Amino acid sequence: MTILNETLSNIRPVDAGIMAKAQARLDNKTKPVGSLGRLEEFARRYAAMTGTPDPVLGKKVIFTFAADHGVVEEGVSAFPKEVTVQMVLNFLNGGAGINVLSRHVGAEVRVVDMGVDHEFGEVPGLIGRKVARGTRNFAKGPAMTREEAIAALEVGIELANGCRAQGVTMAGTGEMGIANTTAASAIIAAFSGCTVADVTHRGTGINDGALNHKIKIIEQALAVNRPDPKDPIDVLAKVGGLEIAGIAGLVLGCAANRMPVVVDGFISTSGALIACELCPAVKEYLFAAHESVEIGHRFMLERIGAEPILDLQLRLGEGTGAALAMGLVEAGVKILKEMATFAEAGVAEGEY
Amino acid sequence: MTILNETLSNIRPVDAGIMAKAQARLDNKTKPVGSLGRLEEFARRYAAMTGTPDPVLGKKVIFTFAADHGVVEEGVSAFPKEVTVQMVLNFLNGGAGINVLSRHVGAEVRVVDMGVDHEFGEVPGLIGRKVARGTRNFAKGPAMTREEAIAALEVGIELANGCRAQGVTMAGTGEMGIANTTAASAIIAAFSGCTVADVTHRGTGINDGALNHKIKIIEQALAVNRPDPKDPIDVLAKVGGLEIAGIAGLVLGCAANRMPVVVDGFISTSGALIACELCPAVKEYLFAAHESVEIGHRFMLERIGAEPILDLQLRLGEGTGAALAMGLVEAGVKILKEMATFAEAGVAEGEY
Repeated sequence: MTILNETLSNIRPVDAGIMAKAQARLDNKTKPVGSLGRLEEFARRYAAMTGTPDPVLGKKVIFTFAADHGVVEEGVSAFPKEVTVQMVLNFLNGGAGINVLSRHVGAEVRVVDMGVDHEFGEVPGLIGRKVARGTRNFAKGPAMTREEAIAALEVGIELANGCRAQGVTMAGTGEMGIANTTAASAIIAAFSGCTVADVTHRGTGINDGALNHKIKIIEQALAVNRPDPKDPIDVLAKVGGLEIAGIAGLVLGCAANRMPVVVDGFISTSGALIACELCPAVKEYLFAAHESVEIGHRFMLERIGAEPILDLQLRLGEGTGAALAMGLVEAGVKILKEMATFAEAGVAEGEY
Repeated sequence: MTILNETLSNIRPVDAGIMAKAQARLDNKTKPVGSLGRLEEFARRYAAMTGTPDPVLGKKVIFTFAADHGVVEEGVSAFPKEVTVQMVLNFLNGGAGINVLSRHVGAEVRVVDMGVDHEFGEVPGLIGRKVARGTRNFAKGPAMTREEAIAALEVGIELANGCRAQGVTMAGTGEMGIANTTAASAIIAAFSGCTVADVTHRGTGINDGALNHKIKIIEQALAVNRPDPKDPIDVLAKVGGLEIAGIAGLVLGCAANRMPVVVDGFISTSGALIACELCPAVKEYLFAAHESVEIGHRFMLERIGAEPILDLQLRLGEGTGAALAMGLVEAGVKILKEMATFAEAGVAEGEY
């Protein structure tokens, strides 16, 4: 059995009994019942995901997957392709937004080269798992072969599989790849049947003319490749990206390992969507970090059934929203673990 | 001049030039312009409040003000009055929600007895600034005298005045006082002219019958006391609370000291509203932590002109939302201080 198939067969729905036990524990804490709102939701879901009403809070890791996109040659981004390489080096030097926010919440950033069009050689800190030097231009043909897409999914799965032995208890997703909102919009359009214009936005900040051009390129990509929405790997291979595949694999691997995973914004959610289309039970292991400014994001969140934790008008990617949301999920779990009960604190209970 | 009047005369609008300088600095960071959304807003506002485009991040403190309310004898809460005392002790023992969340974000909790109906004696950690043993029942007459209201405001101001010398650079508000949503709803109704039913909700979780009773009691309080919305201290004295006065004073004091203050939910915002009605420039020094479940909250946020940072369906108070929001404000300021610029990181800029 392949790693992918084995992973898919290991994903089980979470235990509703554990969720109820965690909520009962929350209801005994010194506060009106339900008054910590979504923090309580995070705590009981985290408990159910991990399979215990007293879950462990260990290391938090953001996996930032980087790759290039052949479609960049169509002029769909405000930034030149070289920025993918430059930003990978910025991540490794600790100067990017994801570094600042991960330090702030006590998470580690792991940068994974899934397919940057550059030979980094030996760079300290970089996890080199290059599947190809970027995708091919999907305006003209498939972005990847099916084999490349599966290989990239399996990179993500293997990274998730390694977490438990390293004391990692919560993962977050992130990405870097110039032109990758183009791929994410194409994925959503393929699954949803929505018009491309309804799920395509400005990415790093393109103007009206460039946005119209981006929409036309995605329409062309869908016409040329005809991705099959019943076959998520076909969609991923034809109009996806290598970093998106890494994210999809990480999400699958986390679900198989019963590890909560916090999914960042627009691009990351397109990866999570691939994972959920491959195995619907994956949804139960996800936290949606934030509501992206990108207009296609809401459609994906509804399809996954996830309510975003934050709405800070972010549109940077890298895992920045995931880092902040991880901090809030962790806060919820600490409520479950650390707050005193009515009995412990000698506080009278309310009458409702 | 009284402490209150001196404080009011020291409050100045923030410097728009500093805000622009901070944004220019953000625009040079390695990210698409504006892509960190509200984190950038937090950073530039924090800079403008503190008067420098390179603001200091020092100690964060949540001030949790506690007091009792005479109106509790009308049966407006799901919890007995003793819970105010019990929760103060829970705060001091570190077992309450605010303790867990403050530890999580690295903030200190300072518990202030503004008017709990109990003699604590010498309790380590408790800041004893009792103005009275609770308010009087405002369903029958004024909650406090005007002198008591001013004394309580000045306690909050003095706590803010002490911060700078202690290295505190950001304050948060919180409260504990059984029946205090009744006072907060009365304050909003007095200022807004909204019907009491439109700004009154379930507090700690009362049922429909108790909610109707709570609305009737507030209507009676407004009829008996006729608070003058043109005179915020009159409103505070007649239908407010001692902890609400403490919060209002802290907010005034922070504004006078150019220190950012993160205002928690429903009760805290009623205190901030008193402060803003006394001096509109106060608004520029506030961050609204979260959107409370209490229905009167939105009205106050609009009147103050503040957009809440979080929406986690919280309704606990204590400062719990403020603690979490402080963490996000701090994250924004770290973006300003710690992220690499395009030049530093050797990253190409975008073309828009």
